[in-house]
Amino acid sequence: MNETAGGDGGRRGRRGRGESGGADARRALRRGAKAAKNSFITRSIPPYRILSQEGLALIEQNADTVLEEIGIEFRDDPEALEIWKRAGTDVTGERVRFPRGLCRDIVTKNAPSSFVQHARNPARSIMVGGESSVFAPVYGPPFVSDLEGGRRYATIEDFRNFVKLAYMAPALHHSGGTVCEPVDLPANKRHLDMLYAHMRYSDKPFLGAITEMSRAEDSVAMARILFGSDVVDANCVIMGNVNTNSPLLVDKVVSEAIRVYCGAGQGIVVAPFVLGGAMGPVTTAASVSQAFAEAMACCAFSQLVKPGAPFVLGNFLSSMSLKSGAPTFGMPEPVMSNFAIGQLARRLGVPLRSGGSLTASKLPDAQAAYESADSMLSTALGGANFVLHAAGWLEGGLVTGFEKLVLDADRLGAYQVMLRGMPLDDNALARDAYREVEPSGHFLGCAHTMENYETAYYDAVLSDSESFEQWTEKGSKDAMARAYERWNALLDAYQPPPMDEAVDEALRDFIARRKAAAEDKWY
Amino acid sequence: MNETAGGDGGRRGRRGRGESGGADARRALRRGAKAAKNSFITRSIPPYRILSQEGLALIEQNADTVLEEIGIEFRDDPEALEIWKRAGTDVTGERVRFPRGLCRDIVTKNAPSSFVQHARNPARSIMVGGESSVFAPVYGPPFVSDLEGGRRYATIEDFRNFVKLAYMAPALHHSGGTVCEPVDLPANKRHLDMLYAHMRYSDKPFLGAITEMSRAEDSVAMARILFGSDVVDANCVIMGNVNTNSPLLVDKVVSEAIRVYCGAGQGIVVAPFVLGGAMGPVTTAASVSQAFAEAMACCAFSQLVKPGAPFVLGNFLSSMSLKSGAPTFGMPEPVMSNFAIGQLARRLGVPLRSGGSLTASKLPDAQAAYESADSMLSTALGGANFVLHAAGWLEGGLVTGFEKLVLDADRLGAYQVMLRGMPLDDNALARDAYREVEPSGHFLGCAHTMENYETAYYDAVLSDSESFEQWTEKGSKDAMARAYERWNALLDAYQPPPMDEAVDEALRDFIARRKAAAEDKWY
Repeated sequence: MNETAGGDGGRRGRRGRGESGGADARRALRRGAKAAKNSFITRSIPPYRILSQEGLALIEQNADTVLEEIGIEFRDDPEALEIWKRAGTDVTGERVRFPRGLCRDIVTKNAPSSFVQHARNPARSIMVGGESSVFAPVYGPPFVSDLEGGRRYATIEDFRNFVKLAYMAPALHHSGGTVCEPVDLPANKRHLDMLYAHMRYSDKPFLGAITEMSRAEDSVAMARILFGSDVVDANCVIMGNVNTNSPLLVDKVVSEAIRVYCGAGQGIVVAPFVLGGAMGPVTTAASVSQAFAEAMACCAFSQLVKPGAPFVLGNFLSSMSLKSGAPTFGMPEPVMSNFAIGQLARRLGVPLRSGGSLTASKLPDAQAAYESADSMLSTALGGANFVLHAAGWLEGGLVTGFEKLVLDADRLGAYQVMLRGMPLDDNALARDAYREVEPSGHFLGCAHTMENYETAYYDAVLSDSESFEQWTEKGSKDAMARAYERWNALLDAYQPPPMDEAVDEALRDFIARRKAAAEDKWY
Repeated sequence: MNETAGGDGGRRGRRGRGESGGADARRALRRGAKAAKNSFITRSIPPYRILSQEGLALIEQNADTVLEEIGIEFRDDPEALEIWKRAGTDVTGERVRFPRGLCRDIVTKNAPSSFVQHARNPARSIMVGGESSVFAPVYGPPFVSDLEGGRRYATIEDFRNFVKLAYMAPALHHSGGTVCEPVDLPANKRHLDMLYAHMRYSDKPFLGAITEMSRAEDSVAMARILFGSDVVDANCVIMGNVNTNSPLLVDKVVSEAIRVYCGAGQGIVVAPFVLGGAMGPVTTAASVSQAFAEAMACCAFSQLVKPGAPFVLGNFLSSMSLKSGAPTFGMPEPVMSNFAIGQLARRLGVPLRSGGSLTASKLPDAQAAYESADSMLSTALGGANFVLHAAGWLEGGLVTGFEKLVLDADRLGAYQVMLRGMPLDDNALARDAYREVEPSGHFLGCAHTMENYETAYYDAVLSDSESFEQWTEKGSKDAMARAYERWNALLDAYQPPPMDEAVDEALRDFIARRKAAAEDKWY
């Protein structure tokens, strides 16, 4: 039952360079000493394997063919092309074609199979890779919505509230990054306020800015203030998350972010976003192999920049509505790809980001929940290590929903219980309970029930299981109405985690100076 | 990828007696000739295995210990006790204690690993067991609800409407049984009208009555009119579905239903309903082993009644709210048990009923959908062969919802696509598409997309993927509102399947005579 990362036929027990490898990572966590049992999930159930070894080999070969024959364009970043030339690839203009197996070889020899991202509170540090799973909130929406205020452009106030809600959610292990895009702040400065919110209002790990090289550099600089430069030099304390421009294009946002984050020994997540039929072929196997090729090339690039740099292989596949051409979510094709990419990442031996609680729905109704659950349960069973968009996502990623965030977070607790598996010890098998309770009897009062009652079942706070009469008496509230009450109550009860006064001042000072150094830009 | 029923370590290739065994069953289906590709699902993905071989053996040993040491009470049916005595069990009063391994031995030697339930339309016949999955609507609710009419007692008119909606749903392969309890009809006669509705308004397979021996006999008698006695004597054309009285009690409703249905060579589904902490211990491993013990004993009993009788091993586990003591659904504990019981059933080598689209919610809101999806996706991945409650279930099974039925049915189509797996042929790998489309290009107009567009992705009719503006223009309807429109439109468009006039008359005549033969009873 304790299947290793090599369980899909990949290499077993490989360790990356530096402090990031699996055993080293576990030691690093222990050094953190206070690492809480719940700061991330350690899976004790096997991942689901939808494809046979032969099927996986076919997809890997397809990815290699694309890398060799078509190649990938690295645009507007001459230094990236230089790096690829030195590695022995065929560079023509901005097109890089890769000798068969080269990317896999670079990844296999260098990339860590797991690493620790440290949180400013050591008890919140996370393991990324191997049998660990980490859930983080939605990333990127320019809009927010809630039951009272409706759908509207996001502000920094919304951003702070989402950071606070994620901080208070036990099954969100990570504070995420752009939990919404605060468009009330200048485009060239908002990353400073976003990062400050993650650093001040939460003590969970977080993501930095990637939209421009200087913003990525600001992010690492602020991390140096928060953690101390010696800690940053020796550990992963911040990560960037970037999308390739599928198909087969990596622009300088991506290559520069890799250079900044990995160059500083920090982590990077690269996720091709493939909407089948638009940014990739309309068949799932092809989309999976293309995304795998793009992500593997970026992983190889990160290891050329800095061998052993913490890298997370990302994947984001969406299907399409035949009626409208719009992306659809939670459908069976991306569900299957969540399983397949998990197998591919384990064979490659690198941590995986995939899935999330995804939906095309405009509000947290039944559509949103069906789609999010199928998307997220397959994400969890597929063995994803880092799950962005695990809570709060609405409308194909255009909207962060307040109710959706707390509803999803409630379900994440259920996946957490599932991933930890079914106990099979003597207490779980309960032989004595049968000796106490006769056939047709009742277990409610028996000793075994009394001993196990409080921890036996997951307590989903937003699931109503009362009688129809009780439910009616309390106002016949649906899940959305109950979620509205819950996130408001959580925000009312919010208390910020403690922070060193001097560090806070230094952060504010850095932000003030950076803001003063440039004009506001709004695009 | 093509894993057999023995994939969890059970016997491979065993065939039951009579016409019900796997290869015979496939031949019988081919004889039916017109058996449509879509009349049931043939899984081409492996089932998910949450437990190791050692874990499964522990649960099997626990089940054997319960059967040997505590035993099961067979109440109010002296003939059942006689049958058990002859089989070599220890019968004391109504308590039957089973020598270790006896039940498994009887099952293994006699019960078919798969069988065909014939529909009156041969193209609708289903395979039960092996790699097949069959979805059927909810069973049993005394209430119905819809957006306009609210929650109310069920009537025969509601019943007929649910039969019609299930008939029109492509991913419901079976008409079910008591899709709601028509409490406007006398308790001792309503089974006649329910069966007539299944027979007349649908041509899919269905379940018969079980509440009393004479009603089970009526069901088989009506099947003889519909199919002809020679067909019924040689084939399974009707099944009964019964619950044991957990813990460890089998009353005469169950044993008599087994005797009537299996005695006539027809099918029976026996599902222990274990609400953990009430009808079983509060730990999942114990609940699973208890339910497995009860169902295995009933399966053995069915094979003593008639060796080779079609039997489906059922399982229904629910967790409990710590706040209210009420049953909860879609929680991680029953999700895990859906996986585990699938492994146990395959090792035993018998078809499995489990799971469904279950929820405690009062209406088809986000709670209902999250819970239903987690419950149903785990049911599908767990390899359940026969899924009762796959659509329409609300409020812990007290209510059949009109909107819920069509919403669930829409999602069942997605599970159907997933269970059929991910194609990996040359077309799916789409190498030529990359040669046509350059990096940063667009696949929308390319030849591969045009060839595959129409069948590439599952089309969920109740999922809205339009833009916020389009959705607002159309009235900002949530999933519940769209579902209300859909089931009304479906009923408006309903056309009954053709039926032989003489058969219809004979059925009506039988019903009239049976109704005239007894006073109405209302309890």
